[in-house]
Amino acid sequence: MGVPYYGYHGRLLRIDLTNQSFKEEAISIDDLKLFWGGRGLGAVLLFRELPPKVDPLSPENLLIFSTGPFCSTGVPGSNRFLLHTKSPLTHLYLFSISGGNFGGDFKSTGYDALIIQGKSEKPAYLHIEEGMVSFKDASHLWGLDTENTQELIRSENHDPGLGITCIGPAGENGVLYSCLINERRALGRGGAGAVMGSKNLKAIAVHGKAKASLSDPDLFNKTVKLAFKELQENPLTSKVLPAFGSVGTLALLKESGTLPENNWQTISGEEAASLLGEKLRSEFLVKDLVCAPGCPVRCSKLYLVRKGPYAGSLSEGPDYETVYSFGSCCGVYDYGAIIHADAMCDRLGLDTISAGVSIAFAMECAQKGIIPLEPEKGLRLQFGNAETVLKLLHSIAFRNGFGEVLAQGTMRMAEQFGKGSKSFAMHAKGMELGGYDPRGMKAMSLVYACGPRGGCHHAGGFPVYLELKGEMDRFTETGKSALVAGTRNRRTAICDSASLCAFVAVGLKDETLASLLSSITGFSVEAKDLYTVGDRISCLERAFNVREGLRRDDDRLPERITHEPIPTGPSQGQLVHDLEKMKDEFYQVCGWDLKTGIPTRERVENLGIPWILDDIS
Amino acid sequence: MGVPYYGYHGRLLRIDLTNQSFKEEAISIDDLKLFWGGRGLGAVLLFRELPPKVDPLSPENLLIFSTGPFCSTGVPGSNRFLLHTKSPLTHLYLFSISGGNFGGDFKSTGYDALIIQGKSEKPAYLHIEEGMVSFKDASHLWGLDTENTQELIRSENHDPGLGITCIGPAGENGVLYSCLINERRALGRGGAGAVMGSKNLKAIAVHGKAKASLSDPDLFNKTVKLAFKELQENPLTSKVLPAFGSVGTLALLKESGTLPENNWQTISGEEAASLLGEKLRSEFLVKDLVCAPGCPVRCSKLYLVRKGPYAGSLSEGPDYETVYSFGSCCGVYDYGAIIHADAMCDRLGLDTISAGVSIAFAMECAQKGIIPLEPEKGLRLQFGNAETVLKLLHSIAFRNGFGEVLAQGTMRMAEQFGKGSKSFAMHAKGMELGGYDPRGMKAMSLVYACGPRGGCHHAGGFPVYLELKGEMDRFTETGKSALVAGTRNRRTAICDSASLCAFVAVGLKDETLASLLSSITGFSVEAKDLYTVGDRISCLERAFNVREGLRRDDDRLPERITHEPIPTGPSQGQLVHDLEKMKDEFYQVCGWDLKTGIPTRERVENLGIPWILDDIS
Repeated sequence: MGVPYYGYHGRLLRIDLTNQSFKEEAISIDDLKLFWGGRGLGAVLLFRELPPKVDPLSPENLLIFSTGPFCSTGVPGSNRFLLHTKSPLTHLYLFSISGGNFGGDFKSTGYDALIIQGKSEKPAYLHIEEGMVSFKDASHLWGLDTENTQELIRSENHDPGLGITCIGPAGENGVLYSCLINERRALGRGGAGAVMGSKNLKAIAVHGKAKASLSDPDLFNKTVKLAFKELQENPLTSKVLPAFGSVGTLALLKESGTLPENNWQTISGEEAASLLGEKLRSEFLVKDLVCAPGCPVRCSKLYLVRKGPYAGSLSEGPDYETVYSFGSCCGVYDYGAIIHADAMCDRLGLDTISAGVSIAFAMECAQKGIIPLEPEKGLRLQFGNAETVLKLLHSIAFRNGFGEVLAQGTMRMAEQFGKGSKSFAMHAKGMELGGYDPRGMKAMSLVYACGPRGGCHHAGGFPVYLELKGEMDRFTETGKSALVAGTRNRRTAICDSASLCAFVAVGLKDETLASLLSSITGFSVEAKDLYTVGDRISCLERAFNVREGLRRDDDRLPERITHEPIPTGPSQGQLVHDLEKMKDEFYQVCGWDLKTGIPTRERVENLGIPWILDDIS
Repeated sequence: MGVPYYGYHGRLLRIDLTNQSFKEEAISIDDLKLFWGGRGLGAVLLFRELPPKVDPLSPENLLIFSTGPFCSTGVPGSNRFLLHTKSPLTHLYLFSISGGNFGGDFKSTGYDALIIQGKSEKPAYLHIEEGMVSFKDASHLWGLDTENTQELIRSENHDPGLGITCIGPAGENGVLYSCLINERRALGRGGAGAVMGSKNLKAIAVHGKAKASLSDPDLFNKTVKLAFKELQENPLTSKVLPAFGSVGTLALLKESGTLPENNWQTISGEEAASLLGEKLRSEFLVKDLVCAPGCPVRCSKLYLVRKGPYAGSLSEGPDYETVYSFGSCCGVYDYGAIIHADAMCDRLGLDTISAGVSIAFAMECAQKGIIPLEPEKGLRLQFGNAETVLKLLHSIAFRNGFGEVLAQGTMRMAEQFGKGSKSFAMHAKGMELGGYDPRGMKAMSLVYACGPRGGCHHAGGFPVYLELKGEMDRFTETGKSALVAGTRNRRTAICDSASLCAFVAVGLKDETLASLLSSITGFSVEAKDLYTVGDRISCLERAFNVREGLRRDDDRLPERITHEPIPTGPSQGQLVHDLEKMKDEFYQVCGWDLKTGIPTRERVENLGIPWILDDIS
């Protein structure tokens, strides 16, 4: 290899399932300089490789896995890997991101990215070791849940150290919000599991020993020490997350009156106390876990239900989003049931947010008489009915009975049900909303409405901590665009590209991040570059969606957010008054045309990616 | 070590949970010559070490693990290990036996036996490597099912190769028929799980590299080749078991009209067809497994439910007994539900036979109005109600609601319920009967009535194949004592002592077994010794029970067997007419006093174990 790659292998692996062929290809150093890896690298590969208007569940769709330069280096919290594809849920750009061991295991095979195209004739799984790809029969594994799938593949290959990501029954059966699971962690949102299932691909198993070299080990070691120190000094990464994981955030939502309840009709009040992290930790904790070796934050938690009807259920998590989706959003204030639901979703391969919000939507439709209260025997669609939630999860994954309806997600259900249900279908662009009510923290409006993968709380920025902690008036709608774009570019786009956890990212200074990037890659990265490169990635993501047909009018929120004020509590009376005005401001910050929402020629050229212009004009 | 031990390490490990202490002790070569290992060794250790009349759930009870000389040698099907204790279900002698990897893993630690005494102050697990015992905290593991327990212990010790046996919630909660699970295999019968739970012992994890040497490797290798050839020539071990596992036996039961249905009120007729091995294999098989490395029989099966309400459930098995207990005995003709029940029992740590038969007993009591049809909301005690069976399994393991009642087993339930329910409580000495109706194969009467651990289909002999295959009139009650005693001594007592699977044992000639024993241990074993040593072990087991107070009158069968004729089918009109006469004949063969049932001085002396006389006179 002519060019020295530090922090990267500089190679990708391309696999064609149709022909059972594979080849290695170089990754251009220019792409890495522009997009850094992970989310940026996956975005540029997807943009270049996937033709517009492809059916997401056709053999033409791609699965692109990638890691970033931090992965496997020892930077705390740096093991993230990504999957890029076109989403069957939104028909738009999709990346999913996960921690756990798979990212590092994949990087050890000697590749920075993996492109999977085509469709296997029969159920198959991939076994990848350095330079070797085997296409293995998975007929006997079809129908297995994700836990048994991983166990059997490890045992059949006599390799307990295999890194595995796989789909469960939900992905096999084409549930539009099915996910991939590695260990008990998910590539969760947007239905990548269904894409994998449509390719007859059950799992990807990886093992290797390759290591990328560091550009400046001395600077790297010095900066890693600094990073550990910064994480120790930040209360979020040294206290809240280590104690409660992401559920620690729930206290902020409770205090601000922004925890959505009963499909966002109401806001969780006193009952939210039963969902606080303190309760979860004191009654259900088995142990604290790391998802990346050596991570000092240890925000991952293993929880066990010890009594009652769900006794014996174990899950890694639930994280905050799952507590919101199956808890308050379905009116279920019972951690036993929530942990059980979380464990079921992991085993079945379902995205917990979309599953919970879809069920909550059906419950409100039943409440309003739009659909029957009992769509089938033994199934009562009522808020707070945990048994129904759990039964439905199984039905969704196997598309049995009413599960077939729910497996489409809220947007399609609302289209099917009609009768005004669209106004309270809590999604943006087809993706069900995360658990932060923008009516009580207005910056979240832009995250949901304009984020690159729809109603997600991560991809489009994460202003929550700053808005809810009194750094600014959370009810003001103007003047927050820089915050949204900044957290989107720096906290999520850049850290997702580096393979750094978004929680850890909060605890690290810009200069530290830049210095880590420089010492690993040899690129001369300065603090301000975090924002420029993040903006470049966001611009490319927007361009992908524009090429698929997305325009300004598609940047929308559910009517409930803009027309129904929060009824009670500390955010009582609040709604999002003028989303269009917020968008005007945000588009200017992003360099998107105010009329169309398309990135402007000027911004595209300034970001150094003029070659995308042909595709978006 | 002065004496050369071939096939054995000649050492045992004694662990005291109360003091967290351990020590190694020699095993006398004379004991090994008399009892050979495994079942025989465990029996003699239990007889010597456990005082009479000990409360089975007190710290004074012992857990004694052992293996035999075949274990880890490469003899096909030779990985069995045993657990001896006093049963909380029968208050009598108990051994449990299991295959899988644990036996070999334990033998690799350099011991032939492990004696555990006392009680840990807090939940603990044992970690045993050669010469090293660690007492590890298991507080965080308490409440976990057996699958998660094994996973966490392996991961916490960074040792995916750890052999583990453990209890689930059922053992922790003292269910009288709770078991131990290694991988997905059980030390199933008699409630050893509750004994382990009463000691606050969650699991035993073992790893080592020790190997016992062979006395005559050339003879051994030659005989192992012969053994493989014999297994290949026997249709049971070369055709039936490889295809269907033990469920292959069900066809014999169906044809002979002896498959008990609805708590033995009726006999399964045409519906039995839905439980045949062919159906299980064609619709549910994932793959054939071996439980011992290299075993050519591969009778272990991994089954997956692929559709319907139990889709996604996976179990290793069900074996024949589980198909009987949850299937025909509960009136459930649905393999989806049976597989789900089997998987639940493995995870919860419940013996499938006792669980199913106890539930069936409650169903008949409800049918007869002795207890309410709905003892709690949502629980309808009706034959064929699979949902109730599955709900009850969870309730039993956690002793919730009506599960508390069921957790005692049939004998104690009948005592509690009264109203004549005792006559159809299908147990012997408190242990629920296996799935072979003695009314249609009379020799089984003696197995159940006189077996050393109560109503078990294994410990007291296994005349089923010979009776049902037309080798003799299955309805005749006389002249079958030698068959019962012979299969008990040779097929079960000896093979359980050697570490050989009882299925494989059927396929091997006596001379081959004797030659294997000689070549491994250096003892000069002849074919006839199989019967003598087997008789010695059986005599000692009987002596243990006699010392606990058991007498002739305790060798009983449920009244249904002796008073209610089989109502329909090929065995219509049959019942066991004269059990006492059968016992007379059997006692003579066994050398038990006709009046008392106590082994005679003459037999005891002939068997060379006069030192037991003081304890039984």
